[in-house]
Amino acid sequence: MKPTLKSRPELAPLLAFGAHPDDIEFGCGGVIAQETRAGREVHFVICSRGEAGTHGKPAQRVAEAKKSAALLGATVEFVELDGDAHLEVRAAHAIKLAGIIRCVCPGIVLAPSLVENQHPDHARLGQIVRDACRLARYGGIKELRRAQSHAIEQLFYYAVTTEAEPMNITPVLVDVSAPDVLKAWTLAMEAHVSQISARNYVELQLTRARLRGLRAGGGHAIPLFPNDPLVLDSLAQVSRGARRF
Amino acid sequence: MKPTLKSRPELAPLLAFGAHPDDIEFGCGGVIAQETRAGREVHFVICSRGEAGTHGKPAQRVAEAKKSAALLGATVEFVELDGDAHLEVRAAHAIKLAGIIRCVCPGIVLAPSLVENQHPDHARLGQIVRDACRLARYGGIKELRRAQSHAIEQLFYYAVTTEAEPMNITPVLVDVSAPDVLKAWTLAMEAHVSQISARNYVELQLTRARLRGLRAGGGHAIPLFPNDPLVLDSLAQVSRGARRF
Amino acid sequence: MKPTLKSRPELAPLLAFGAHPDDIEFGCGGVIAQETRAGREVHFVICSRGEAGTHGKPAQRVAEAKKSAALLGATVEFVELDGDAHLEVRAAHAIKLAGIIRCVCPGIVLAPSLVENQHPDHARLGQIVRDACRLARYGGIKELRRAQSHAIEQLFYYAVTTEAEPMNITPVLVDVSAPDVLKAWTLAMEAHVSQISARNYVELQLTRARLRGLRAGGGHAIPLFPNDPLVLDSLAQVSRGARRF
Amino acid sequence: MKPTLKSRPELAPLLAFGAHPDDIEFGCGGVIAQETRAGREVHFVICSRGEAGTHGKPAQRVAEAKKSAALLGATVEFVELDGDAHLEVRAAHAIKLAGIIRCVCPGIVLAPSLVENQHPDHARLGQIVRDACRLARYGGIKELRRAQSHAIEQLFYYAVTTEAEPMNITPVLVDVSAPDVLKAWTLAMEAHVSQISARNYVELQLTRARLRGLRAGGGHAIPLFPNDPLVLDSLAQVSRGARRF
Amino acid sequence: MKPTLKSRPELAPLLAFGAHPDDIEFGCGGVIAQETRAGREVHFVICSRGEAGTHGKPAQRVAEAKKSAALLGATVEFVELDGDAHLEVRAAHAIKLAGIIRCVCPGIVLAPSLVENQHPDHARLGQIVRDACRLARYGGIKELRRAQSHAIEQLFYYAVTTEAEPMNITPVLVDVSAPDVLKAWTLAMEAHVSQISARNYVELQLTRARLRGLRAGGGHAIPLFPNDPLVLDSLAQVSRGARRF
Amino acid sequence: MKPTLKSRPELAPLLAFGAHPDDIEFGCGGVIAQETRAGREVHFVICSRGEAGTHGKPAQRVAEAKKSAALLGATVEFVELDGDAHLEVRAAHAIKLAGIIRCVCPGIVLAPSLVENQHPDHARLGQIVRDACRLARYGGIKELRRAQSHAIEQLFYYAVTTEAEPMNITPVLVDVSAPDVLKAWTLAMEAHVSQISARNYVELQLTRARLRGLRAGGGHAIPLFPNDPLVLDSLAQVSRGARRF
Repeated sequence: MKPTLKSRPELAPLLAFGAHPDDIEFGCGGVIAQETRAGREVHFVICSRGEAGTHGKPAQRVAEAKKSAALLGATVEFVELDGDAHLEVRAAHAIKLAGIIRCVCPGIVLAPSLVENQHPDHARLGQIVRDACRLARYGGIKELRRAQSHAIEQLFYYAVTTEAEPMNITPVLVDVSAPDVLKAWTLAMEAHVSQISARNYVELQLTRARLRGLRAGGGHAIPLFPNDPLVLDSLAQVSRGARRF
Repeated sequence: MKPTLKSRPELAPLLAFGAHPDDIEFGCGGVIAQETRAGREVHFVICSRGEAGTHGKPAQRVAEAKKSAALLGATVEFVELDGDAHLEVRAAHAIKLAGIIRCVCPGIVLAPSLVENQHPDHARLGQIVRDACRLARYGGIKELRRAQSHAIEQLFYYAVTTEAEPMNITPVLVDVSAPDVLKAWTLAMEAHVSQISARNYVELQLTRARLRGLRAGGGHAIPLFPNDPLVLDSLAQVSRGARRF
Repeated sequence: MKPTLKSRPELAPLLAFGAHPDDIEFGCGGVIAQETRAGREVHFVICSRGEAGTHGKPAQRVAEAKKSAALLGATVEFVELDGDAHLEVRAAHAIKLAGIIRCVCPGIVLAPSLVENQHPDHARLGQIVRDACRLARYGGIKELRRAQSHAIEQLFYYAVTTEAEPMNITPVLVDVSAPDVLKAWTLAMEAHVSQISARNYVELQLTRARLRGLRAGGGHAIPLFPNDPLVLDSLAQVSRGARRF
Repeated sequence: MKPTLKSRPELAPLLAFGAHPDDIEFGCGGVIAQETRAGREVHFVICSRGEAGTHGKPAQRVAEAKKSAALLGATVEFVELDGDAHLEVRAAHAIKLAGIIRCVCPGIVLAPSLVENQHPDHARLGQIVRDACRLARYGGIKELRRAQSHAIEQLFYYAVTTEAEPMNITPVLVDVSAPDVLKAWTLAMEAHVSQISARNYVELQLTRARLRGLRAGGGHAIPLFPNDPLVLDSLAQVSRGARRF
Repeated sequence: MKPTLKSRPELAPLLAFGAHPDDIEFGCGGVIAQETRAGREVHFVICSRGEAGTHGKPAQRVAEAKKSAALLGATVEFVELDGDAHLEVRAAHAIKLAGIIRCVCPGIVLAPSLVENQHPDHARLGQIVRDACRLARYGGIKELRRAQSHAIEQLFYYAVTTEAEPMNITPVLVDVSAPDVLKAWTLAMEAHVSQISARNYVELQLTRARLRGLRAGGGHAIPLFPNDPLVLDSLAQVSRGARRF
Repeated sequence: MKPTLKSRPELAPLLAFGAHPDDIEFGCGGVIAQETRAGREVHFVICSRGEAGTHGKPAQRVAEAKKSAALLGATVEFVELDGDAHLEVRAAHAIKLAGIIRCVCPGIVLAPSLVENQHPDHARLGQIVRDACRLARYGGIKELRRAQSHAIEQLFYYAVTTEAEPMNITPVLVDVSAPDVLKAWTLAMEAHVSQISARNYVELQLTRARLRGLRAGGGHAIPLFPNDPLVLDSLAQVSRGARRF
């Protein structure tokens, strides 16, 4: 874990959690590319080695994740919870991830969405991260006593598939149309060689982003779903809307 | 109607619609104060003279509205649709308001929310404005041929009461805690002398804003409800969240 | 219209609106029987003569409605809006019904539900009544100046079919299991001879009420859907719940 | 646990569950004061000693809870489940709480709401209590064989914060405007000295209640959210509605 | 209007309504191609000549619609309601369309979705068609006396854009992957030369269909949203599900 | 477990899961009768012996379930998870049920609905089965390595009570009006002698089915709730709708 400099609070580190080695990239890799390009530190925490998937051995998948994170300009660490396809919602997991949050001190946290009709590890990790963000603030949790309390600023959910997009939260759309961003994202997805050999995941994600981008006015865009209302000082912060078509 | 200078596109004029002379102020006057203080031009369009209310004659209410708008730094015009408590959803109304939109060329438009369990004029005006924003873009509408098409950037809804807050849209919260902003808002509400004599509308609005503000971290905040997803270039634009408590 | 004695405010008159001559009876006739038996005055306002239905001439249907209301202990009047199958949501209609509300001074108002996937007159009348209840309060509406403002206590929606039950409101269930109540309701439905000859409406309603009644603990029950939260002085007022099965 | 006299069934004991020593008071203390004043026995079951909070040692928090319950006229017991910030949804917990329900034989049960975006212990306890109310009825659960089956009448959820108010249930609002009730509630909240030193919880709750009270016609009101439809014998039981504004 | 042979009731004519000359094709042209290929008669009713659009004169748009319908194997007629961008929800419109339904005697009807955040003519036409399907059944509507009552079997909504897809109805996905179907659909969209010159509507629709198709197992698919539950004789009728990814 | 012949893929075996010995029959026994009559193999997996119920010893309940399954033409097996009223959502359970899915190779799977306000075992089993259907596809799960991956076609939920019907999924209604089907279903429910002695479950289910049947055009119908959109080759597959009343 590396030290974080909070000199520009609006650029406090971004911490992204994934249940499997490729979830973050497929779900919101373009956002990561956009943020690192803008100078924000990004750290990935991956909670299994993808050992239950049909394709790819754990060692290969870990290597793919590391390569992919590097392509996006992010650092990465692996955390062992219950193992791929075995994740359960346990208080101990939330406390463990809260410890990582206290260590990284992120402004923004990304987690897989809570929609239950997807890989069960995704929705469960989303719940665990949501709770972890809260527990990171509480001063009396014994297991966390060594690290200082930390209150994050925002928790956003990403969706690994269209079906995982929550219908009860209005998304924000992050424009990832810049050619270098789109390219970095595509390369990062393609780094998961073991996965894309079997299913056209890259096409799936680019099609999703294109559909959102068409609405946003052209290009590509990735939806993120805020857990809590955004607080604005001025409407000038949100001066673009997705109103084409 | 005054000319608008679009030199700083993120500060394109804000256009707010109200069904009655006090709706904008009670629903989102603090946001108006915040935006005019930041240098944005704000224009009010009020669609009745409040003649069906229990208190206040039309002439008095118009005068109150003008005074209130001035306190907030906004310009104001009155438009006659069907009259207070008589508003219906007609295509002709939407086209008329689309004409105003083409004239003012706003970036952001504010309208009363679509929630139906409130004064019927509120929800209906919300529908009319939503449609007007769309019609303002279409090139072939005869009644509008003299003015150039205009595509707004964002449509936000405001709620005049808690019950009028839509439950299916995640709000953004605009921080209105700055003392001068809060004061300007309060004075603007109090300018509606005829109304506040009968019911404690000012307390209602400040209580609402305080409750949102407590969640946002202290102070006061006003919720706005985006009609369409926000498009962001960077997550740095939304670096605060309402996560206290 | 008859005078109302408000000596027992909890027994202020109940005013029920129906779009067609049989809607109130089919949708909530058991509730009416229960309330009149308890001493409450009930008045029906029927907004068409059912002239667009497949069966029954207007004169016959009016006669059936009068007989049915009498069986339930209610008075009845007919109001002409746009005619059966022609109803539109107009401000003038809401103002007209607001005038009736000011005349009857009800505590509780019943209206057909707002669910749109039913006979269009039903949902539209529901909207008109909802707005009428609000307009009845406002002092400045010219057309209503002769009658004094009146604020009702509660607006409940009834559903003429299962599909018309709103899914976004928690219902209250009115127990109509008392033999005389159930019998009065059944007779009142059967009084609509022209309608029940063609379709098994009575079976439909008794089946609906039985299904709710089974949940409520036996017997029959009719759901009503409050437009606004109930205000309680004590939880003793709501000491039964529908928890069987 | 004290014996309960069910001579007036509408005043069967009320049983309230809290995840932490202050949850019941902050979420619905005014309701408790209202009910005990009306002669109903109220019993609190608190499922942790608040040991994970930032402020207050467990012993202090237990003492605060006891003092607070006494101020409200309620009895209190502590039950150990998984510990503060460690609660998980386990069948064994529901069975344990079902045993308490069988012992207390309540008519009404109160539990924290099921909304997940709050302290994880709150929503989980809500789930556990909901299940416990059901399991208390089943005759074949081995662990519960010593106590007789009991079917409660109503389960209501309370919300500790605005964000914890469920959006898919229509609330009932309990009027807590009586000066002695409001005072007892305020004192009971202030008894949690360790908590209110850090955050303005009391202001938060009174602001929430004031906002609801304004809608209900003045004063203060607390929302409760029924798990199941209310069953009424007469509409006279619900003769007030929240329709102001 | 041509005669319809109901020899194979499961192939009763399909009747599709569009607010503008290109709505049916963009929203569900692939479904039309699939159905005509299977031998079903399809008839289009278009309720304006698109005269308010930015591009294309009415005469040109009518010609494009006729060519497009022919490419899909459908017949087409134009009906004048209020004109493009001027449509209002009127009972007279529903009765007029009910007359067409009685004439065509369709099994299945297609209409634009009811989602309000789209071109206002779309949602309003959806409402009018929904009501028309119901009114077509009622025997007493004077304006319709010359034609025999007709009860349709199904009403499905199509969405012209992603944003117009209703979120409260589970869609059925119609597989349009067959090369000739996909080609016919594409050509039919491209026949609207005046429209596709300005915006990439064809890409929009193919991207939408590809995204649904990926979930459905490959190829392309178009969502339709049933107004009422489907009634099945056997689960064998629905033996494929959209479960890939 | 018996071998399955997939010669007619649209008649691949149906696999139904129940938490207790009578859940499948009460929730969707008529559908089972309909499917076995049409030649489809049906297999029941029951996840407890009902030992926590008020009535009936485990041995008796197992015998009742076997008799009931036989009456419906289904085979049955019992699986031990956590025991009646003790079920928890564990990854190990989903993996165990995924193993059964791989063995039976069903096209359609039935599970209790996910609605939480019912017997907790029901909703939890629904979640476990949903996840099991997904895990059955993944190639790398160690515990499942001996059986080949299997992708089911459809997952439908059934509801054991009206309250357990999900409100966010549009149901399909299976017509069970054929006299022999209705009779087989009734006999299968009555085979649970220990249960129906205490509560009128059979009346409850037949009332539910009658109410749905009335809407579907007469007779009886049972709602099933698809987990994922249905994929159709032709609208002729869904040529009936529930539009009566």
